[in-house]
Amino acid sequence: MINEKMYALGSTRSKIRELFEYGKQLSQKIGKENVFDYTLGNPSVPCPEEVTNVIVNEVKNPSIHGYTSAQGTIEVRKAISDYNLNRYGFKLDPDLTYMTCGAAAGLAITLRALISSPSDKVLTFAPFFPEYKVFTENAGGSLVYAKCNEVFDIDFESLEETICPEVQAIIINSPNNPSGTVYGEDTVIKLAKFLEDKQKEYGHAIYLITDEPYREILFDGAVCPFIPNYYDNTVVCYSYSKALSVPGERIGYVSVSPKAENAQKLYLAIAGAGRSLGYVCAPSLFQKVVELCVDKVSDSQVYKDNRDVLVSNLEKLGFDCVNPKGAFYVFMKSPIESAEEFSDVAKTFGILVVPSDSFGVKGYVRFATCVSPDLIKRSLPALEKLAKHFNLI
Amino acid sequence: MINEKMYALGSTRSKIRELFEYGKQLSQKIGKENVFDYTLGNPSVPCPEEVTNVIVNEVKNPSIHGYTSAQGTIEVRKAISDYNLNRYGFKLDPDLTYMTCGAAAGLAITLRALISSPSDKVLTFAPFFPEYKVFTENAGGSLVYAKCNEVFDIDFESLEETICPEVQAIIINSPNNPSGTVYGEDTVIKLAKFLEDKQKEYGHAIYLITDEPYREILFDGAVCPFIPNYYDNTVVCYSYSKALSVPGERIGYVSVSPKAENAQKLYLAIAGAGRSLGYVCAPSLFQKVVELCVDKVSDSQVYKDNRDVLVSNLEKLGFDCVNPKGAFYVFMKSPIESAEEFSDVAKTFGILVVPSDSFGVKGYVRFATCVSPDLIKRSLPALEKLAKHFNLI
Repeated sequence: MINEKMYALGSTRSKIRELFEYGKQLSQKIGKENVFDYTLGNPSVPCPEEVTNVIVNEVKNPSIHGYTSAQGTIEVRKAISDYNLNRYGFKLDPDLTYMTCGAAAGLAITLRALISSPSDKVLTFAPFFPEYKVFTENAGGSLVYAKCNEVFDIDFESLEETICPEVQAIIINSPNNPSGTVYGEDTVIKLAKFLEDKQKEYGHAIYLITDEPYREILFDGAVCPFIPNYYDNTVVCYSYSKALSVPGERIGYVSVSPKAENAQKLYLAIAGAGRSLGYVCAPSLFQKVVELCVDKVSDSQVYKDNRDVLVSNLEKLGFDCVNPKGAFYVFMKSPIESAEEFSDVAKTFGILVVPSDSFGVKGYVRFATCVSPDLIKRSLPALEKLAKHFNLI
Repeated sequence: MINEKMYALGSTRSKIRELFEYGKQLSQKIGKENVFDYTLGNPSVPCPEEVTNVIVNEVKNPSIHGYTSAQGTIEVRKAISDYNLNRYGFKLDPDLTYMTCGAAAGLAITLRALISSPSDKVLTFAPFFPEYKVFTENAGGSLVYAKCNEVFDIDFESLEETICPEVQAIIINSPNNPSGTVYGEDTVIKLAKFLEDKQKEYGHAIYLITDEPYREILFDGAVCPFIPNYYDNTVVCYSYSKALSVPGERIGYVSVSPKAENAQKLYLAIAGAGRSLGYVCAPSLFQKVVELCVDKVSDSQVYKDNRDVLVSNLEKLGFDCVNPKGAFYVFMKSPIESAEEFSDVAKTFGILVVPSDSFGVKGYVRFATCVSPDLIKRSLPALEKLAKHFNLI
């Protein structure tokens, strides 16, 4: 009488985890120095010093580990609102902001709040984070996805073909995991206009969930537009995992735009979903960390340097990849049709990269560049052998 | 298109939260010193010094805030297994142990793993923690409950009347919130025998979920039997919220007994449920805290002292309550039929107590005794007025 769907979810390891475990075994066999693990998006830079200072200081406060209200302390919610107002000129409402155990929790509860019927659909753009499908299905709906164009920007033709009246919500993720694409202002304006028209056509709100854990990791002067400035029915899902390099601590927030249709009702449904999924409150010590470090960011220079070294070398070796404008991934075209097969060959050279199939597209592999610069340097001879194997050089 | 069920859950404040907010307003009106808030189960004693030391020490480790595997680090799972073996002579398997964001998350994911069909039922004993119903319904099943006897021990006649073949799981909570009852070994043996017979009769496993966040808070030499020693199909749901006084940090675990039917499959379903509800990993710093403080407990002497003062005074004033053997609540019989009405009258004397209706029984109120001893002392004149109001003295 065990739930078969949950069993299937728990027993099928994600491709990323599978490769990661394989890498650990391979290290034992051929030596750690011969394994180049590009699989996991675990930030490699330390958290800002201020985070550590806040922790050391706040643990003296005897009530720091107590329950907070379910939506989080008013102080952290105000700090987030002030920060975003100052930075983006948009006032998120502290009373429409709900602290979460990271962006995954935020997405899971927002989708639970927005899906009411098995016919409800959520739309996203491939390539996408595989858990979007898991959270949508857990909430009782189904995920559909539109294609992107060759530089992984939104393909509006594909969007037009994919959208339908059953779509209640759209998830965007910019800077994008795995492609590194950052949607420019033109794209965002076009998307907002498209959705406004569709709302009129369908006669119901389409909520835009903007999943933006990589918002602070931008290169080459790229700018990531703040979506509530462009589209009213927006729900921001943020995580401090990457910005503060604290992914294991599970801290982030969901904020419903005060301009959204039924904003208050949606917010209460999100609170109800948080309650029903077992989230009592976001970790209290890290709520305080966010309150006091809301404007701090880990040094992401190493991600840019890593990208530069990896991309220039991959191109030199004849591989084809879109130069990412943000996040810490490089999405490279597989020189053969099957990315799975390419990934398997790469493994024989000690190079672990994730085939794109689980992200909803075929023919690419993802390098996570949140690794040590030294690992990249040491991997270059192996990458060269890989290029030779496929007759690229 | 917002989910009405989630909206209802988020917009109906629990009675406890409602009273708590009322207390804050009342304090502003009549002064904090005239409000005696017995509503919230927020531990009042500080965490053990060792917890603070581990935090201050571990934040120097640059990888302490990184992702762990979804089930938690092997080190913390081993520490938990060793601790329980040493204490209870039962070996929980680290590979069947899953770290969670507290007991609420543990219950939510275990129920999601065990419920497969809308006809599935979960049985518990009233009075019970109201969220059992929320988590069971979120998982797609329904909650039924048996009565307890007058000292809040299991009423086996009521259990026999309530159980049915659709019951897949039973939740027990000892020491109990709100009654403070601790099930003795006789009760546990009788319950195990009862369930074994029912499993044979129904031809399927009945999993016993033991929700035991108060396991370390016991008085008068009470002993809390370790359930896996008595019944094979057991899932332990533990939280460090009370034992280490860190309720806001959300850290606990679920452990499937290695003797349980389909233990490995159930464990994987729990992992799948964790994934689908958006739990990526339990907070990483507090996994380390548990690993290194697994055998530490906050000083619960104050809870015993509070109980002694409150119970003796309530009895002196003519009120009727069962002397709790554990946890930090006093469950008192309302001198009038309606506990809601009694709670409303108590409010006029500045005394905030939770009526028992939301715990599934009528005619009682709950005092949370995790308050300062001073608050209890200061509340005695108000309690006296309340007793006089009801002509008890």
